[in-house]
Amino acid sequence: MSRVTLPHDAKAGPTKPEVRAVTLEKLDLRPTDHFVDVGSCTGSVSIEAAQRVKRVTAVERKAKRLEVARKNLAANEYDADVALHEAEAPAGLPDDADAMFIGGSRNFEAVLDHAVESEIDRVVMNVSRVEPTGAAIEAFRERDLLDEVVQMQVSHGYELAGATSFKSNNPVYIIVGRRDAGGLN
Amino acid sequence: MSRVTLPHDAKAGPTKPEVRAVTLEKLDLRPTDHFVDVGSCTGSVSIEAAQRVKRVTAVERKAKRLEVARKNLAANEYDADVALHEAEAPAGLPDDADAMFIGGSRNFEAVLDHAVESEIDRVVMNVSRVEPTGAAIEAFRERDLLDEVVQMQVSHGYELAGATSFKSNNPVYIIVGRRDAGGLN
Amino acid sequence: MSRVTLPHDAKAGPTKPEVRAVTLEKLDLRPTDHFVDVGSCTGSVSIEAAQRVKRVTAVERKAKRLEVARKNLAANEYDADVALHEAEAPAGLPDDADAMFIGGSRNFEAVLDHAVESEIDRVVMNVSRVEPTGAAIEAFRERDLLDEVVQMQVSHGYELAGATSFKSNNPVYIIVGRRDAGGLN
Amino acid sequence: MSRVTLPHDAKAGPTKPEVRAVTLEKLDLRPTDHFVDVGSCTGSVSIEAAQRVKRVTAVERKAKRLEVARKNLAANEYDADVALHEAEAPAGLPDDADAMFIGGSRNFEAVLDHAVESEIDRVVMNVSRVEPTGAAIEAFRERDLLDEVVQMQVSHGYELAGATSFKSNNPVYIIVGRRDAGGLN
Repeated sequence: MSRVTLPHDAKAGPTKPEVRAVTLEKLDLRPTDHFVDVGSCTGSVSIEAAQRVKRVTAVERKAKRLEVARKNLAANEYDADVALHEAEAPAGLPDDADAMFIGGSRNFEAVLDHAVESEIDRVVMNVSRVEPTGAAIEAFRERDLLDEVVQMQVSHGYELAGATSFKSNNPVYIIVGRRDAGGLN
Repeated sequence: MSRVTLPHDAKAGPTKPEVRAVTLEKLDLRPTDHFVDVGSCTGSVSIEAAQRVKRVTAVERKAKRLEVARKNLAANEYDADVALHEAEAPAGLPDDADAMFIGGSRNFEAVLDHAVESEIDRVVMNVSRVEPTGAAIEAFRERDLLDEVVQMQVSHGYELAGATSFKSNNPVYIIVGRRDAGGLN
Repeated sequence: MSRVTLPHDAKAGPTKPEVRAVTLEKLDLRPTDHFVDVGSCTGSVSIEAAQRVKRVTAVERKAKRLEVARKNLAANEYDADVALHEAEAPAGLPDDADAMFIGGSRNFEAVLDHAVESEIDRVVMNVSRVEPTGAAIEAFRERDLLDEVVQMQVSHGYELAGATSFKSNNPVYIIVGRRDAGGLN
Repeated sequence: MSRVTLPHDAKAGPTKPEVRAVTLEKLDLRPTDHFVDVGSCTGSVSIEAAQRVKRVTAVERKAKRLEVARKNLAANEYDADVALHEAEAPAGLPDDADAMFIGGSRNFEAVLDHAVESEIDRVVMNVSRVEPTGAAIEAFRERDLLDEVVQMQVSHGYELAGATSFKSNNPVYIIVGRRDAGGLN
């Protein structure tokens, strides 16, 4: 497994490496998994998943972003079978996925409904805006998916006058769902 | 690759899963790597590394902790060749490691000297106390190892009166070194 | 002006000193103000306000907490005229307040309606749970009150093995409203 | 007491309002205090102190910044007697101050020595870079001044696609000293 390379950028920017690392840890991917990336954007999560699972489906409503993901995938090594769908989820979502990542809050209730109906085992959603975070946690809870919520804040050091100052990314919420989860402790 | 199981605990506690995920991302492990875990404690980082690399050496000065690591390793699946050394680093460190994790600040200058002398490619150190963090960053800088410093703060949601409140872990510094690094940007 | 003393505690605990300091800065209190504290709990915000304004009304639905606030007020010096009302807001709220603090999310929409109807100039609400935070921001926005939202995270140092480790409070949202505010930038 | 106005800016920027609010809370200013602001920059802390104490001395090594502070002071109301000294502290520090704010890490050991020698009651230092933070905490500890260390992280909401996203300031350390303090708990 080598680190992810993202030579091509989309306007919205990729999930930051540290948030992506925690997201993947929470997705708990297994070699036999079919993983679905909802709103795949630059493809950064799809790429890393493709290095860990058997099959990846990336769904993205914007043709341009899908093209960026395609190019970024081509720049990385992986063994998985990867399909890219230009569609606005829940359209284009497979019915046999084991794990799902939702990178944005668009249509998230319908996407979660699909996750429940297709009996997905694990689903992780990242949100940074606070109103949809609250709404998303409630949607996970109502669907018996809610397993964990993590707020993560990352700051990067830079050199200032010979010592280390920090520039902080915005805080991100990582909502972790599992089928028949018992809710937060 | 399956998630890490840690049935056995040591008093100091393992590196938290989210910090461990970012730490491993920064270690950028490759299948051919010899990885060395300095102050391996519960073995949580060694286990996850053992699922990604060819060879792992864990060095731990406390016999009890080493026994905990041994048991935790036994509870997980991995293909790597793993050696456990009861020693106070830099004693017990191999001369041919590619990547090193330093989980505490004990003897860190001598450990970093060994990393430089043995031409280790990547070294990541986690510190939470602020005085040794400053000293460690300076030690990385002086040895031309300093590549990145990340401060990471993680909060976990819990249910309070029907909604989600958070309990925050302490902030952790992750110092990332590479051989002949150019310093922070 | 002397520091606030809180010899008496209520189960819910006072607003933490650092959050209270920022809350008061955002309330922008003036010597001629009538300040209303909604859900006054231990009275910590009322006390500090009483050291800055002419008149304070504290509204609290729980008799026990009101008694705690009364005792805490008695332990501090201030010149303001302070009234304590046992009532569940919006009941008990005055019609001529200039600035309002809302310490919890109970009935917050009705409380904000009262703030708008009585033409309150400044209103600050603290929330820590994420679902009501989202709902509260929307309620401020809908009433043309939304001026600023701050998330604040405070960690306190403690000595660990001769150096300074940190224990973090949970993140708190401070929602700042002003009459006829233009929304967030 | 009215809010601080800062029509004039210095390159280094003022202490942010939220950090300033907590800093002032920690300084625990009293109406009879002589307050000294070391490295007063835009004068923001001096102004707010001047609204609370009897006497303020601001010491600043850069003439331009001192001029900015002078103009900002003139734009605010306060009753204190304020003196501005162009000097590099510890030069220019008074011998009878009750409370001291140190806004940067330049010469901080000599400044703290002066604080101890002149028996200052309270001293608060803000640092954002991690190496000087560690060194400053140690300097407070060695001089029996160390009472509290707070790390504070503030994020500001902005509107993004109809909801609230956040932009985070860098984390700041606030080191709180008192004469004959017992150290951190």
